[in-house]
Amino acid sequence: MNAPHLLTGDRPTGRLHLGHYFGSLQSRVTLQNTHHSFILIADVQALTDHFHHPEKVSENVLEVLKDNLAVGLSPEKCTFVLQSQVPEIAELTVFFSNLVTLGRLQQNPTVRHEIRQKQALFGESVTYGFLGYPISQAADITAFQAEVVPVGEDQLPIIEQTRELVRSFNRYYGEVLREPRALLAEHPRIRGLDGQQKMGKSLGNAIHLADPEADTRQKIMQAITDPQKARKNDPGRPEVCTVYTYHRLFQPEHLGTVYQECSTGSRGCVQCKQELAFCVNQHLAPIREVRQELQHQDAQLSEMLLDHTEQARVTSKATLQAVRKGMRLLFKTS
Amino acid sequence: MNAPHLLTGDRPTGRLHLGHYFGSLQSRVTLQNTHHSFILIADVQALTDHFHHPEKVSENVLEVLKDNLAVGLSPEKCTFVLQSQVPEIAELTVFFSNLVTLGRLQQNPTVRHEIRQKQALFGESVTYGFLGYPISQAADITAFQAEVVPVGEDQLPIIEQTRELVRSFNRYYGEVLREPRALLAEHPRIRGLDGQQKMGKSLGNAIHLADPEADTRQKIMQAITDPQKARKNDPGRPEVCTVYTYHRLFQPEHLGTVYQECSTGSRGCVQCKQELAFCVNQHLAPIREVRQELQHQDAQLSEMLLDHTEQARVTSKATLQAVRKGMRLLFKTS
Repeated sequence: MNAPHLLTGDRPTGRLHLGHYFGSLQSRVTLQNTHHSFILIADVQALTDHFHHPEKVSENVLEVLKDNLAVGLSPEKCTFVLQSQVPEIAELTVFFSNLVTLGRLQQNPTVRHEIRQKQALFGESVTYGFLGYPISQAADITAFQAEVVPVGEDQLPIIEQTRELVRSFNRYYGEVLREPRALLAEHPRIRGLDGQQKMGKSLGNAIHLADPEADTRQKIMQAITDPQKARKNDPGRPEVCTVYTYHRLFQPEHLGTVYQECSTGSRGCVQCKQELAFCVNQHLAPIREVRQELQHQDAQLSEMLLDHTEQARVTSKATLQAVRKGMRLLFKTS
Repeated sequence: MNAPHLLTGDRPTGRLHLGHYFGSLQSRVTLQNTHHSFILIADVQALTDHFHHPEKVSENVLEVLKDNLAVGLSPEKCTFVLQSQVPEIAELTVFFSNLVTLGRLQQNPTVRHEIRQKQALFGESVTYGFLGYPISQAADITAFQAEVVPVGEDQLPIIEQTRELVRSFNRYYGEVLREPRALLAEHPRIRGLDGQQKMGKSLGNAIHLADPEADTRQKIMQAITDPQKARKNDPGRPEVCTVYTYHRLFQPEHLGTVYQECSTGSRGCVQCKQELAFCVNQHLAPIREVRQELQHQDAQLSEMLLDHTEQARVTSKATLQAVRKGMRLLFKTS
């Protein structure tokens, strides 16, 4: 397999939603044809901020796998990896920990932002593990010798830190690791139904891939539109309307019509939402169908996930072997 | 084996010296008869502050093993463990990282002291790995289910932090881990030959177990004594004399005589040091003899060390299995 390695994945802290779908899953489906794709189910990383609810993580491992399969990722083309079953990632994390200063981690804009957010939300003090997550992500990426890592713009500093870490490692221990590059997501972050900037697993503003048709319609009917458009025939401002941003994703071919009708007052919000709900449900129908079929295959899916993980470990073990050799820790060859 | 588990060990950053011998090795020899002793050669931990000199660590792994064997530790009684070959320690380190806040680590008196020392000596900024070393020591201890950890007084805060971590873990994930207790070393820290409070591997003030007889004598003849005792027959003050502290260790039965002769001026420093050098060399002779025999057995010693490490992993794997079960990460049983 000479295709470039790609690493992407999800934290199994809940089912995946439209934010994941447009931000990442759709492009994975395309990229699986041109890249040797490792899809990481990052259960260990999920524990960094869910350590007090481990059952929430374990319950979502297979759900996240089903979401990935339902959108069209193929077990024949991708390698699914369950992070907790790859000790090499933990070993690399420990080795890399010596190459990054505390100050450098604390300056990482993504880490700073997330720490601020966490403290504002929960008033919690930051754990050692949380601060170190750019290091463990560098371990994920390098373990599978990934050259390409699809990310959102807010995650660019994490990839930059991985590149720095790789350069440090290679300077001390020889040219062992490969610098990955970020592949920026085409679609920007999708807004929440409540108008918030981000659709979030834990924010209650998301349409999940697994949501039934009726729930999806109901959620859309409650979505936030232009607050100045009080009556059906008032002219609206699509540029401030959350529902309009969804039309852009689900029926780009009719976007001109939607814009024109809304801004001239010939389209009421109820009708507009019904139309959107129809489009979304039509789009999600085949995904739901596959997901439904997978719903009772937990045993087979677990087995597949573990088989895939063992296949992936051929790469992570080879990486660790080269890393040990560079670090003069090679006491045996197995 | 129902004997309580004990964990101790060394960082392979240089050969062991009299400081290690009186502070730790001697009591290991006794404790191996009553405890299931795991002797850890902590190469991964050594890299936390020797990451730019990995060869210094790898070169000293077998030297440290030879020092341990030479003083009387028996491969039939103890289990020697090479840290880098135990992935379970890295995995535990990563899991434990979520249970300790940055603030708690920065308040640990031992860590504070070592960070200050490091910054004063090298002006270096602290790495993520260095700050986390109490967590990785907790992983060492719990991996081998150690109940007893012999330590010097300055290391007590590390054991206290391990105990805290164990209690946190068990609170979240069930009664999985055992709280270790510290076994305080009988002998306080041995002074350096230069009169410094500590004999240190890197301080150039140590008598190594592997030093030849002539070197040992020469080092002792240059040791610092009471600066006010300028001439042979001046009365001295044993209580401020470094050489006197060594007589206490090497000929406690004649300590009264040494004290009396020195303080009345009937014992000159040259004679006193010659007498000490004789005692030290006599004491070290059998140790050097065994060490000499081991000098050309590197292949056998490597093999023994790796065999022992695999035996030890029966315990660390069992620990990890129980830890995974508690953390709901048990996807397979092997």
